[in-house]
Amino acid sequence: MRILGIDPGLRRTGFGVIDAEGMRLRYVASGTIVVPPALPLPERLKVILDNLREVARETRPDVAALEIVFLNTNPASTLLLGQARGAALCALADSALDVHEYTALQIKKSVVGTGRAAKEQVQMMVQHLLKLDGTPAPDSADALACAICHAHVGPLQDRVAALSGVLNASGRPRIRNGRLLG
Amino acid sequence: MRILGIDPGLRRTGFGVIDAEGMRLRYVASGTIVVPPALPLPERLKVILDNLREVARETRPDVAALEIVFLNTNPASTLLLGQARGAALCALADSALDVHEYTALQIKKSVVGTGRAAKEQVQMMVQHLLKLDGTPAPDSADALACAICHAHVGPLQDRVAALSGVLNASGRPRIRNGRLLG
Repeated sequence: MRILGIDPGLRRTGFGVIDAEGMRLRYVASGTIVVPPALPLPERLKVILDNLREVARETRPDVAALEIVFLNTNPASTLLLGQARGAALCALADSALDVHEYTALQIKKSVVGTGRAAKEQVQMMVQHLLKLDGTPAPDSADALACAICHAHVGPLQDRVAALSGVLNASGRPRIRNGRLLG
Repeated sequence: MRILGIDPGLRRTGFGVIDAEGMRLRYVASGTIVVPPALPLPERLKVILDNLREVARETRPDVAALEIVFLNTNPASTLLLGQARGAALCALADSALDVHEYTALQIKKSVVGTGRAAKEQVQMMVQHLLKLDGTPAPDSADALACAICHAHVGPLQDRVAALSGVLNASGRPRIRNGRLLG
């Protein structure tokens, strides 16, 4: 299973692609889409849309994973982040990719083993788990961590859901705050 | 000049298309994209993306106009609205449409003559200005009002900007709170 992880942001959107075979993970690609801040908003969103579609076209993932975002206390920032996230989700939808969402807590627990991990610990563990030569950049590391989280948690969730039949109206496990609802 | 006005929302996204020739306006089309609330977020955004692209493909506007959104006091709602707005902007960017943004105040002033107009007054004036047989639905009316605002204000802004040379780095008039910055 090839997983595309995304860390969306209006200024920088990280992406990371890995292959997962059971517990074995393999690094495929990662990078950061840097959006020119001087562009008008619609063009900035188009940079995210076009580049993520290209990433999906070139790496051909089976599924995508995104972090459920942190709500900024500044409403204007939240709105901007929402628009960037909307553009990222549109790129994934256009690439016919099923999207799974995870909280920061789930991602950190899955990658580092604790939900209270610092950014540097996430970068270090991503490097270790994917046997990378160097430390990945922060945006790429977050995107790769999200993909790793799906590799660890996704199949489990699917199995639990299939066993207990807790699927919502659209055939997905009913999850609230990272917990499967039974 | 054919103008596509959009009133984006995650549950309902209104659109309205008009032709403007100087001060003469002509109704072309309008409607509401109703998004099934049971769908997962990525699929809801795709409904907005696909339908708006189709509207643009079928009506072939020259330019698009959007309302600068109201910031909800609820951060989660702001994030959802941001994502819907992101999807709408992606559809416009994909359709190679230049996007102009107006505040609710600018739109109401331009359509009703006062910034303190009620929703019903906007609907009535849209019906009157476009010589419609019936009152348009609220989402369509807001989208049409946005298009009418661009028909009234857009050419003026362009002319003022060209005369005084107050263009920002991306070649657009520098506007803050609806005022052109000189």
